[in-house]
Parts: sequence; structure tokens; C-alpha cells
Amino acid sequence: MKDCLVHAKTFARIAPRLKSFEDKLNIIVMDDSGAFANARTGEAVVEPKPEIAFGNADAFFGPSVREFVLAVARSDRLDWFQSAAAGIENPAFVMIGQAARTFTTNHTQSEAMAEWALWQALDFFRQGPKHRAQQAAGHWERHDSREIRRSKWLIVGFGSIGASTGRRVMALGGEVTGVRRSQGLAEGADRIVPPDRMMAELPGADVVLVCLPHTPETEGMANADFFAAMKPDALFMNLGRGALVDEAALMAALDAGRPAHAALDVASEEPLPRDNPLWSHPGVTLTPHDSPQTQGTIIGADDTFIENLHRYFNGEPLHHLIDKAEFAAG
Amino acid sequence: MKDCLVHAKTFARIAPRLKSFEDKLNIIVMDDSGAFANARTGEAVVEPKPEIAFGNADAFFGPSVREFVLAVARSDRLDWFQSAAAGIENPAFVMIGQAARTFTTNHTQSEAMAEWALWQALDFFRQGPKHRAQQAAGHWERHDSREIRRSKWLIVGFGSIGASTGRRVMALGGEVTGVRRSQGLAEGADRIVPPDRMMAELPGADVVLVCLPHTPETEGMANADFFAAMKPDALFMNLGRGALVDEAALMAALDAGRPAHAALDVASEEPLPRDNPLWSHPGVTLTPHDSPQTQGTIIGADDTFIENLHRYFNGEPLHHLIDKAEFAAG
Repeated sequence: MKDCLVHAKTFARIAPRLKSFEDKLNIIVMDDSGAFANARTGEAVVEPKPEIAFGNADAFFGPSVREFVLAVARSDRLDWFQSAAAGIENPAFVMIGQAARTFTTNHTQSEAMAEWALWQALDFFRQGPKHRAQQAAGHWERHDSREIRRSKWLIVGFGSIGASTGRRVMALGGEVTGVRRSQGLAEGADRIVPPDRMMAELPGADVVLVCLPHTPETEGMANADFFAAMKPDALFMNLGRGALVDEAALMAALDAGRPAHAALDVASEEPLPRDNPLWSHPGVTLTPHDSPQTQGTIIGADDTFIENLHRYFNGEPLHHLIDKAEFAAG
Repeated sequence: MKDCLVHAKTFARIAPRLKSFEDKLNIIVMDDSGAFANARTGEAVVEPKPEIAFGNADAFFGPSVREFVLAVARSDRLDWFQSAAAGIENPAFVMIGQAARTFTTNHTQSEAMAEWALWQALDFFRQGPKHRAQQAAGHWERHDSREIRRSKWLIVGFGSIGASTGRRVMALGGEVTGVRRSQGLAEGADRIVPPDRMMAELPGADVVLVCLPHTPETEGMANADFFAAMKPDALFMNLGRGALVDEAALMAALDAGRPAHAALDVASEEPLPRDNPLWSHPGVTLTPHDSPQTQGTIIGADDTFIENLHRYFNGEPLHHLIDKAEFAAG
């Protein structure tokens, strides 16, 4: 029997799917008050030392995130941690990654993020701001809109977010070019080009979506030259990390009329300080890094955990395994 | 040679595709000043009497709509009129329909209208109004969103708009039920149910889209009982005609909390008078009947015209032919 820690809300949702692990897992649940209990008996558990833990939105966006992270990071017998997030930059993940023998991530949030990208593209193509201003003024005037159908998308960084977005854009009749180091075919893209082709592809795109991780090479890659290469009527979107974008250069580019608009779910500083000019720039639509936050993402992470649980007990390699060296104290 | 009237902007776009009709068509163009000319020679044409005419957005939304409609409706030898619209209720179409031996409509605007439906559904699921209010206030707070994936759509009136919308929703992972008299399979729907099942289906839908024509039977069909059967967290959308909706009942239903929101591209009176309470109702998103107004719609209508031109000269039945009796003086 392995001690396995999950949030009580998570357990309520996935209990039926854990039936087949009844003789393998001793489930410990943490509720929103930060109290731990044996899921079967209801008995309180003091200082749990989980061997397996599943850290998802219930745990990390709930009121007892501190109790959860400490219980996991302090366990001296943590064999496997399943994260519901795709990235590992968060300090809590570094702590847990150093404690865990095995750390796996999850990439199902890309489906929700892809719907965010469609939402922003449609609001841009459909002239959302102009239509809303008209409604507020009680003014009836028709406007031309553009369509995702036949639009050209350039997706810079073609991983799970790029593929999830590209699949949808193609299904809606758009054309997708993905920028990625490894060449060849990819689901969700009409074609894949290498990074050194990116600048040459920018002028042809109606929508440019960046969804790269933050590394020394990607930092500030969307800079003045990048924006100057875009079409005046194009939309720029960022679903990666705020640090990918030179925000001052973006605002200057928008003021200069190219690109036409920017939609950002991430910012260089989060939460973005109230006095940051991005908030009120008329060319910027800003959401508070909540593009992945849907019920679909929660269910997707549950799926990844259950799938990996089967693999764990079958001795098969886990999905989305992170190299332990990534958590080495820097 | 048949005299064929099209707008000058239309001719500029489709001239290469008219090459194969060079010895069959004598093209007369009307420009935005309302002047008519022979497209080949540039010679002015006074009082054109077209045998064929193509009436699209260039002609009907341009400054010389009056000159165009009069030239067509006055022609005593009008053999065929190709409309770019789907409906025939507009008085100009009735005039033309009475003059023409043959009248055909066009249904390609359903693609643009389907993108409008996705736009409105995403803005609702993604909490657009809340996110915009937050940005205006410089406030960073994450919110849960819903997804089109796994959402349940009820599309009342499953013609071309329903099918175009349903295809997209299914491609994005949603579930589509269409309400239609004729049963059987339909592209863009998981299942089709008859009209007498509509009330029973309403409580299960996350999104209800009505896109029926306006007839005595459909007038006011979205009434107090209809809205009371919807889920409190559901979205109601109208892409049909304003007269389908009892607007007072809709506003009362929104105030009572069911459905959660309404997105309307049509109103009972168009243009909607400035003092109409729909404009400022917080539960209503209103657009000025411009959901079809895209470049894609213009190209789609061109395609229909060219396809029907081939059929016309090949003696084949034209697409979307309207029964002449529909224009009988009532």
C-alpha cells in the first residue's frame, strides 16, 4: 500500500476511478481547511508523508495551498508527484521536484488555452470593441468582420498549445504554420518551419500566436523587429510567458499601427501592477493568466493522473516525465 | 448574348471567372455613383434592361442601391436574378421577384454567421464582460471559464446556418442537437429531433440558438415558457429574425436569472430605436444584424453566382431556386 495525497474535492470527483487501486493505494485527502484525513476511514492524519501526490487546481488554487505544498515537499519518501501544470518554473514545483524521485507534468490545459485563442481571435476579427461601444451608445451601424476561415496563423512554438490551437483553426478553415525546431509533419499544422524562418513568415500572418517556454533564448523574442515584420491588420497573441514579449516595444508598435491589436494572457510581472500602462492601452486585451482555468482542464488533469497511476503500478514509463536534473539547485 | 448587370466592384473581383462566358454575356456594370456602363467598352448605358442580374452586398450595401434595384425591377426582360441573400422578405426582393422569371437565393453567409455564434458563445463561456471590467479597473483576478468542448447545443431550425454552426461546434468537441421537421441524419448534428421535442430538449442545453425564418408559426416562439425551460447558466442566441423572440419576455427571463445571457444579431425593429431597453440590458449582447457581413460571405456569393451561371447556360436546374408563387402580391 502506498500513501497517496490528493485534495478532498479531487477525491470526490475521481473516487470511482480509483476503485481498481483499492488494494494498492491508501488515499489521504486534504480539505480546504488544510486538515488531512484517511479517505476510507475519515480518521485524521497528522503530518502525512505521502509516497504519491497529485497536485492540481483544487490544491494549488484553494485556500490551503501552503499546507499541501509543505506536506508534499517535506515527505522524505515521496516517490512520484503528478502535477496538473505544464511548466515547472514555479518555486513550489522546484521544491517538490527536489523532494520527489519522479515528477510528471500534464499538458491537457492546452485545450482550454486553445479556446482562449479562438475567443480572442474572434473578438478581434468581429470588431468586438467597436460593437460594444456602439451598443453602449444605442447606435445601430453595420460593420465588416473577418473570418477565421481562410485566415493565416503563425504559431511560434508548436507544442501542445500550438497543436490544440492549430487543430481548431484548421477545423474552422484557417491555415496554420507552426514554428518548431524539429521538422516534419505535425497534427494541427499545414506546415512546420524552423525557427530561422520565423521572421520571413511574420509578414504573411493574420494572427501570430507565441506559446514558447521562457528560456534565455526566448526572452524578449517578440521585440521591435518582430512587430515591425507583422501586417498592420494582424493580431498578436501570447499564451506562453510574459517574458517572451518586450512590452514597451509592443505598445510602441501598436501605437505605430502594426500589429493592429494584442491579446495577452501573460505579463512580464504577475499580478500586473495597477500602474502598468498595459492595462489601459486601447490596443491590448489582457486576461489574468487564467486561459487554462476550466472544468475541462480539471478533468483533463484527472485523466492524466489516472492514466499515469495505471502506468505506475504496471511498471510502464510515466507520461510527461521531467528529468530530475531540471530541479537541481541552481 | 444576354445583358447581365453586376456591380463594378463585383466585376473587378470576378472578371477572370467570367472569361468562359465571354460569348454569352454582355456585362453591364453599375458603379457607386449609380452610373451604368458596358464592362468591355466602358461606354455608358442608359436605362439598362438586364436579362440577368446579380444583387449582392456591393450593390445593396453601397450608396446606389436605389439605382440598382430600380434598374433590375423595371427590366421587362429579366430572366434570372441571383440574390446574395438567403431570405426574400425584403420588399426590394419582392419587387425583383415579381419582375424576374427565375429568382435564386444564396446560403453561403451561414459560414460567417456560424463564426458569429462561436464568438458570442466563447465571450459568454469565457466571462468576457467580467474580464473587460477587470482590465478597465486594473484588477488581476483569475476566473473559471467554460468550454465549447463538451458543451451541449440545441439549434432550433436546422438549415444552412444550423449546419454551419453545428459542424464547427462538433469540430470543437461540443454536442449538437438540431430541431427540424424532416428527421434523419444531418451534417453538423449529433442528432435531429422534431419540433414537438423542442421544449423537452431545452433544459439540457448550455447554448440555445434559434435560426428559423419568420412565419406565422415561428413568430414569438421564444416566449416566457421557452425561457423558463432553459438552464439558469445557459446562453440564448438569435440568428434568425427578431420576430421569433418575445423581447419583453426575454428581458423578464434574464432578470429572473434564466437564461444567463442573450446574444442577438436581430431585433424586432431594425434599426433598433435608441430608447429600446434591449440596448442597455446587462444580460443582452446586441449586434446590428451584421453577422453575415464578411469577405468570406462576399466570396461565397460570387461562387454561387458563377456556379449558377454554368448551370444556367448548360440548361441545368439552378441552385436555391425560389418558387415564383412566393412573390405573388399578397
